Amino acid sequence: MVIHNSSSSLAETLLHRRQRLASLINFPVILWSGYSNPRNFPANAFPFRASSHFLYFAGLPLPNAAIRLESGKLELFMDNPEPSSALWHGEMPKREEIAAAIGADVARTMSELKHRGRDAASIPVQNYRTTLIQSQILQREISSPSHLEGLDQELAKAIATLRLTHDTGALIELRKAAAVSVEAHKAGMSATPKAKLEAAVRAAMEGVIIAHNMTTSYNSIVTVHGEVLHNEAYHHPLQPGDLLLADVGAETPMGWAADITRTWPVSGKFSPTQRDVYDIVLAAHDACIATISPGVEYQDLHLLAATVIAEGLVNLGILQGNPEDLVDMDAHTLFFPHGIGHLLGLDVHDMEDLGDLAGYEAGRKRSDRFGLGYLRLNRPLKSGMLVTIEPGFYQVPAILNDANNREKYQNIVNWERLSQFADVRGIRIEDDVLVTDDSSEVLTLELPTQANAVEDFLNSH
Amino acid sequence: MVIHNSSSSLAETLLHRRQRLASLINFPVILWSGYSNPRNFPANAFPFRASSHFLYFAGLPLPNAAIRLESGKLELFMDNPEPSSALWHGEMPKREEIAAAIGADVARTMSELKHRGRDAASIPVQNYRTTLIQSQILQREISSPSHLEGLDQELAKAIATLRLTHDTGALIELRKAAAVSVEAHKAGMSATPKAKLEAAVRAAMEGVIIAHNMTTSYNSIVTVHGEVLHNEAYHHPLQPGDLLLADVGAETPMGWAADITRTWPVSGKFSPTQRDVYDIVLAAHDACIATISPGVEYQDLHLLAATVIAEGLVNLGILQGNPEDLVDMDAHTLFFPHGIGHLLGLDVHDMEDLGDLAGYEAGRKRSDRFGLGYLRLNRPLKSGMLVTIEPGFYQVPAILNDANNREKYQNIVNWERLSQFADVRGIRIEDDVLVTDDSSEVLTLELPTQANAVEDFLNSH
Repeated sequence: MVIHNSSSSLAETLLHRRQRLASLINFPVILWSGYSNPRNFPANAFPFRASSHFLYFAGLPLPNAAIRLESGKLELFMDNPEPSSALWHGEMPKREEIAAAIGADVARTMSELKHRGRDAASIPVQNYRTTLIQSQILQREISSPSHLEGLDQELAKAIATLRLTHDTGALIELRKAAAVSVEAHKAGMSATPKAKLEAAVRAAMEGVIIAHNMTTSYNSIVTVHGEVLHNEAYHHPLQPGDLLLADVGAETPMGWAADITRTWPVSGKFSPTQRDVYDIVLAAHDACIATISPGVEYQDLHLLAATVIAEGLVNLGILQGNPEDLVDMDAHTLFFPHGIGHLLGLDVHDMEDLGDLAGYEAGRKRSDRFGLGYLRLNRPLKSGMLVTIEPGFYQVPAILNDANNREKYQNIVNWERLSQFADVRGIRIEDDVLVTDDSSEVLTLELPTQANAVEDFLNSH
Repeated sequence: MVIHNSSSSLAETLLHRRQRLASLINFPVILWSGYSNPRNFPANAFPFRASSHFLYFAGLPLPNAAIRLESGKLELFMDNPEPSSALWHGEMPKREEIAAAIGADVARTMSELKHRGRDAASIPVQNYRTTLIQSQILQREISSPSHLEGLDQELAKAIATLRLTHDTGALIELRKAAAVSVEAHKAGMSATPKAKLEAAVRAAMEGVIIAHNMTTSYNSIVTVHGEVLHNEAYHHPLQPGDLLLADVGAETPMGWAADITRTWPVSGKFSPTQRDVYDIVLAAHDACIATISPGVEYQDLHLLAATVIAEGLVNLGILQGNPEDLVDMDAHTLFFPHGIGHLLGLDVHDMEDLGDLAGYEAGRKRSDRFGLGYLRLNRPLKSGMLVTIEPGFYQVPAILNDANNREKYQNIVNWERLSQFADVRGIRIEDDVLVTDDSSEVLTLELPTQANAVEDFLNSH
């Protein structure tokens, strides 16, 4: 735990957050940070990741700690390290020092949390050992964070309201995460010519993140098989004709995330077919970003991307028909099955532990249409929201070879024409876009996006 | 999941292991692999790490799977991926393919495990969700793996007997992990001149591990504050006069670990005081390795290292007295407080989930002497055992400033002389040593160890 000298601004940020919380709810709240998870034996744990809700109000990733919030006051509960721990872990900041850094009104031991939980709301931590303690202190069952009830649900709604838009303190962190992620992608591009395996490109990218003392905000995707959407294998060799899809983001020590995808040609030059499709995905990406401003419905961005992609595929002769009609019949989902993006903040899918409570405007539900049903965000945009824009094109065998799809879209897809695009397995272009008062700001703008710029970068490094 | 073409030898290895198990116990065994742990929301999980006991008999890191072993037969229980998962995760090997690769006699769904658990023994997995399922299937409480009873304890003893020495299949993996870890340390040394932070050296080292499609077998220690024994901070700047201590090891995709520590001068040249102490630690390291052979008591290696260190510190004028007497009064623990090493295998502290059951010969218990009580292995060595040898010298403030120690050792330590060694905060040299039929083999031999060789390497890269 390093307490930086920006602590006074951290304390101010946290004060402002809990004052805003106090304006939304009038009951006490206890939030736990959680424990690290053992990997294969207790002393060999995965790196500790504090609960995001805790981090939002406590600012620091304190293991096995809790905070109690009431009427804008902050109580910190944590135990000082055992004296013997200095032998193994060195001198750690004491409870009082941490309390001062985060502007806590009171600092207490964990045992003092007993008898303080009876009327408090909370949100379950993603760690079973912690949820047992939560139930014990709160003196009641605490359900899954995606199915909260009563005060817990009210709390979740209030927290979602706050975390939906980002304050200055959050944006400082989010910009740091974005900047390091941009550097990681540049390193991945630079490493590609000499890389033999996907793993080597991943190493170059994550190396930048580690060197900045950050961690990945999710398990990286670095693959020549971009058509496998959640590909976490890295063993494939890189071939000159391949496109490499890299979806890699950094997370700051305080837990704030970035999320970037780029797709580049291993050889340094897109084939004509690859460039044709790349330009379609890019057109969708650019159209969405150009449209972002407060009040715009995020779902409309999704449908805009779908239409641009459908139109592009019509122009290439892969789809046949009117682009709007094609989108109405979900023909674009053959190649762009996922949503256009999601909220970004302390979590890479921000607040997804709460189910759709943060992502979906009250009263809205997931669509049962294929494709649209995967959309993670369905709200009007507001200034201060950070979202990803990540259109893609994939040839997913499970979709394109599906008998129902083959039949349903038999007169829509020109399968013979499509077969000429066999070297385009998966393309995605993803940036992190902040909604501003009048339009938007791309936090990840420094990374090449245009096909020419990508090629120039690859060939100059 | 990639099934390599060495599958037939994998199946043979696994057959041999379960035949050996069947020669030790005569009751059925069910072992679970476990689930991945959510990080901050369910879809964002830490990388999956299968239970080591499962890996030993199942060979592959299959999430949410189980095996049943009885009389040398292997039953595999796992569910095929949902058809829809091909959309996100691509085509995965089916249960039958995996069963063939590991030589299972039967392949069944997870639900078929019901009603098979009544008389089976098991070992709890380091994942609460899995232990709930284990208790359910076994129809009984399943206690902590370090406090097993009845058949579970008999099973643990049998597994410890098997895993204590390594077969050919294991050694192939362990050598791979060692080789990549050696490369990682070389990369760390090479990166040091240009590195500004500890994090940059860590990045170079872990980059090599990631590039080989491996993972770290434990959270890396890369620090200029080697006196903090379990230091997991990486933010300190590197200064020319610093020693950098790097304790970094790789783990193969099948779960087999390496564990190496080197300490090198940031400037490329040890100061005279640093070299003096380095040579003492190295002498202890070399003396232990030269002594290793079947039948030797591992605790005697620990005491040998302690004596060599005590003697060296007497020669430097830091300690005063007869080395054997100094060790008898634990004076060496002022500077070498931990054990000389531990078992190494699927876990970096192999089988430490079982408490001391594997590490300590039956009937032996941890010493209550400071230092000796931290010894993780206390058995006579056997051919096929893989152990670490990792002596060190540290100036731990919590030890050296302890009032009791100051009084107890007031006439033993020449504090003034010690103060001349202020630039030696922490040194450790650790290698992975296989006990062979007649002596030993250092699996990590390719890495420079002598002070001159370390300097030469640093200055030639």
